[in-house]
Amino acid sequence: MNRKELFEQIKSKQSYLCIGLDTDLSKIPSHLLQAEDPIFEFNKAIINATSDLCVAYKPNLAFYESQGSKGWRSLEKTMEIIPRNIFTIADAKRGDIGNTSTLYAQAFFKQMNFDSVTVAPYMGIDSVKPFLAFENRWVILLALTSNEGANDFQFNQQEGGGMLFQDVMRKAQTWGHPDQLMFVCGATQAEQFEKLRAMAPDSFFLVPGVGAQGGDLATISRLGMNKYCGLLVNSSRQIIYASKGKDFAEAAREEALKVQQEMSGLLAELIL
Amino acid sequence: MNRKELFEQIKSKQSYLCIGLDTDLSKIPSHLLQAEDPIFEFNKAIINATSDLCVAYKPNLAFYESQGSKGWRSLEKTMEIIPRNIFTIADAKRGDIGNTSTLYAQAFFKQMNFDSVTVAPYMGIDSVKPFLAFENRWVILLALTSNEGANDFQFNQQEGGGMLFQDVMRKAQTWGHPDQLMFVCGATQAEQFEKLRAMAPDSFFLVPGVGAQGGDLATISRLGMNKYCGLLVNSSRQIIYASKGKDFAEAAREEALKVQQEMSGLLAELIL
Repeated sequence: MNRKELFEQIKSKQSYLCIGLDTDLSKIPSHLLQAEDPIFEFNKAIINATSDLCVAYKPNLAFYESQGSKGWRSLEKTMEIIPRNIFTIADAKRGDIGNTSTLYAQAFFKQMNFDSVTVAPYMGIDSVKPFLAFENRWVILLALTSNEGANDFQFNQQEGGGMLFQDVMRKAQTWGHPDQLMFVCGATQAEQFEKLRAMAPDSFFLVPGVGAQGGDLATISRLGMNKYCGLLVNSSRQIIYASKGKDFAEAAREEALKVQQEMSGLLAELIL
Repeated sequence: MNRKELFEQIKSKQSYLCIGLDTDLSKIPSHLLQAEDPIFEFNKAIINATSDLCVAYKPNLAFYESQGSKGWRSLEKTMEIIPRNIFTIADAKRGDIGNTSTLYAQAFFKQMNFDSVTVAPYMGIDSVKPFLAFENRWVILLALTSNEGANDFQFNQQEGGGMLFQDVMRKAQTWGHPDQLMFVCGATQAEQFEKLRAMAPDSFFLVPGVGAQGGDLATISRLGMNKYCGLLVNSSRQIIYASKGKDFAEAAREEALKVQQEMSGLLAELIL
């Protein structure tokens, strides 16, 4: 999916919601545990209940890998049923030397047909570029993350000016353009959002950290939206675990609907 | 495996060789492609031919993930046949927020029984600590990598002194001790090796980049060895793809033997 198509989806659905498929056997409704593939059954129900309200799904690879090859198979089956007009994000945070990153790109873009993959910047240019060689596929590069540990290195002042996350954003934009490169910018970093947007005015940001982690949707939308929206705001636990009962899919839909309605209002206020 | 046991293995085998299982369907002997699981058959033959000459095996996850759930299964089967007195490294370069890193740790330490996993530092403390909670399991944290892109951020001068990789090594040693934390230090960074060793005198270093990438075994051994050896030097392509014929396992053994003999000499010269 290219940037124009993504913006069309956002306008059509009045939503820039990304739903995180962080599917955890210890948190899904117990009646699903009888199924042959409970993770897939859960995802299928969540996708059927919410696909008209979100523009992206983001499976977090750790949740699948923790179940071994069976979990990886659940993810493959999940990818087969996500409607093709929904942007898909492999939240994998990969990054390795060039020939290895090429194989990760094959894993996510070819084997599983993801639109995008999250990538860690520490290993630099040759860890990122192989992902950018795939047409209409995206790198979503970690810039400023939503977690406590973001304070350890990302804010480090670099001699010559700026913080590490700013150096990452500056250099990465010499490797790829806004039609193939997004940045992860945590919603808990609201005080940095104007700076983030100023550094990458045309780029989409994937924004985790709204909800359970404490970020505020309206605040980051007002600070971060650009004229193509430029935001994919993720919510995982708050939506997919809204209920542990047999009504889990309906409950997830209700939560997603609340977020979509707030987003619709923010889009009207800010750009449409 | 703990640090003492690892050093015992090194002394007993006169080797600090780690063999990288970067198993690629396009590079393995063609006669194996008829097998039901060619990746596993290749790994099995390599392991049988080399397990007395190396102290560690390091499967690179990208090679398995690029084959989808089938590749993940090949890796699970490979882990089942690696002798338990050999240290195992999941070269996965993971790193995510705390609850996600916990799941990655489960994937590698519980599901697949790896001794260690490589971890990227960009997301800081809560991306690393969950791996350190597993007894006798190891984090191998990226410090100074062997690739071109190492120059993009890792050498950045930090205000207040030192380069980014030094800040990573300094902070990480407040999170974990040398019995659970190693560092990745590329063999192509020989001019930094004294600095690296001075920063972490007791830690093991996983050293990629000897061979195909241009690093020199004797040089980095003389600069980097400590009294417990403190080095695991990786070789992948040079050993496992020594021949594309039916003699591939014997050819791999011959290459591994050459490295082991050089290591035996270096151990005698430097510490034993």
